[in-house]
Amino acid sequence: MEQLLHWFDLIGIVVFAFTGVLAAGHKQMDLFGAVVLACVTATGGGTTRDMILNIPVFWLQDTHYLWIAAVTGVISFYLIRYLQVPMRLLMVADAMGLAVFVVIGTQKVLELGHSPTIAIVMGVMTGTFGGLIRDILAGDIPLLLRREIYATAALAGAATLVLLRASGKVPGEAVVATAVLVTLAIRLAALRWNLSAPIARFGNK
Amino acid sequence: MEQLLHWFDLIGIVVFAFTGVLAAGHKQMDLFGAVVLACVTATGGGTTRDMILNIPVFWLQDTHYLWIAAVTGVISFYLIRYLQVPMRLLMVADAMGLAVFVVIGTQKVLELGHSPTIAIVMGVMTGTFGGLIRDILAGDIPLLLRREIYATAALAGAATLVLLRASGKVPGEAVVATAVLVTLAIRLAALRWNLSAPIARFGNK
Amino acid sequence: MEQLLHWFDLIGIVVFAFTGVLAAGHKQMDLFGAVVLACVTATGGGTTRDMILNIPVFWLQDTHYLWIAAVTGVISFYLIRYLQVPMRLLMVADAMGLAVFVVIGTQKVLELGHSPTIAIVMGVMTGTFGGLIRDILAGDIPLLLRREIYATAALAGAATLVLLRASGKVPGEAVVATAVLVTLAIRLAALRWNLSAPIARFGNK
Repeated sequence: MEQLLHWFDLIGIVVFAFTGVLAAGHKQMDLFGAVVLACVTATGGGTTRDMILNIPVFWLQDTHYLWIAAVTGVISFYLIRYLQVPMRLLMVADAMGLAVFVVIGTQKVLELGHSPTIAIVMGVMTGTFGGLIRDILAGDIPLLLRREIYATAALAGAATLVLLRASGKVPGEAVVATAVLVTLAIRLAALRWNLSAPIARFGNK
Repeated sequence: MEQLLHWFDLIGIVVFAFTGVLAAGHKQMDLFGAVVLACVTATGGGTTRDMILNIPVFWLQDTHYLWIAAVTGVISFYLIRYLQVPMRLLMVADAMGLAVFVVIGTQKVLELGHSPTIAIVMGVMTGTFGGLIRDILAGDIPLLLRREIYATAALAGAATLVLLRASGKVPGEAVVATAVLVTLAIRLAALRWNLSAPIARFGNK
Repeated sequence: MEQLLHWFDLIGIVVFAFTGVLAAGHKQMDLFGAVVLACVTATGGGTTRDMILNIPVFWLQDTHYLWIAAVTGVISFYLIRYLQVPMRLLMVADAMGLAVFVVIGTQKVLELGHSPTIAIVMGVMTGTFGGLIRDILAGDIPLLLRREIYATAALAGAATLVLLRASGKVPGEAVVATAVLVTLAIRLAALRWNLSAPIARFGNK
């Protein structure tokens, strides 16, 4: 279980760092600006979670998260010059990071003994705030707040984890893997078929 | 007194959540994006205050704040489809949230034993940072930093509370109510008559 | 040593507060909006550092930092009306603030016993996040992420401090002063000659 979560964690760090560099590429940032954006995107969600819960920020104890984000940033920086990077790749990588971080965040907060409500809120925050900060820094409207079922997918994944755990009938690894797949499937389906939740609009327009 | 502050707190949560949904409506966000923005707007000021003061974040202990923000978000989401919502309503609701949260924040920090300077700074922060985060996330220049006497109203309200309390002659409830009314009156007057504090401009233009 | 760092700290507060008012001037904010932006710019980097390290935020104990930022804000607000302020001054003042805050941040975190990696990361954060928040609030793409060797200069300054300290052969004051000068020289040279680190771009364009 520990090991599964650790792998998911590494996947999340790598794919979010990669999306940070893609966003930096769109804005023609320089190497170190891109690496900063990679690190902030990869660690922003977990950092916000740990600061709000008032527990030690995860990368202070274990700096390999920062190193992996930074090295991924440098490699991606040169990679995108020489490879054809389809624009949708940003969305797919972001969806993978979202799925693993929502689940890791929810799981971590449940294990700290918080209520399901708090676990779901903090799980959604863990999964979404890295990308949110990336989009704000790059001057874009955050993906989180746009219409393509982003917050919805995160919420569904976190709720799946809480419900399956509460049922007590599913082994831990299966619970975690299912919640990741649910989040990823909903988000990718929304991207593929341009699905959207109801859109906010004004009656007087 | 407790009860008065609690009512103000609920008013603040509800009106700020509503402004979050109005901002989401302007950007055609989806339902869950709008609910996220409602919750962030309603809780952002108090969350920043508690994190800086290093005390437990208020909604971790008592999740009914989150529920009220989320439910207000959902109801507002459907309400704005069927009602004519005048555009100035965002400003008026925001002014009410500003007034109650500035006063609650200042009061809370004074009761923790901090100095008047810190209480005023943290009160202004409590009242303004939820709306600030809302505006940043929605891609607007924050109301706080624009010219319509926003920070000024917050500062006046926090200072009123500190001064009336220090005088020792006014009962607690009257102090709190007066400070709320001062903030609200200044902000609404500025909106009504387009008042502004001196504007920053460059000599060489 | 203490005294040298204290002077640097004051310089950083004053120049960053000044850059906040310059940014406010570009956006025609009002007096209190400009003062808020001055305070946030001057204290944002250190505040983020202290919150992440979970130590008391520096201006809660010692409010003279806030007062200096606010007074600088008010003075600058009126100053820019009557003086010809060359546009490049924002960049130069920002470079000075960057240099002193990167070095103070790195030094402070090393003295708390953290590893060189964490000290460099937190030093870069201390130096850059105040300006980052300023640029975000004013609706600009952050200087930090643009192409003019900004993060690079911060990183070089923090690394210089760590390396010179580790060598054990240079007196503390000389280490600190050298690291400040290295940061400032790299950043000013980049501004003067339009130097840039490699820029992120896509292979398929």
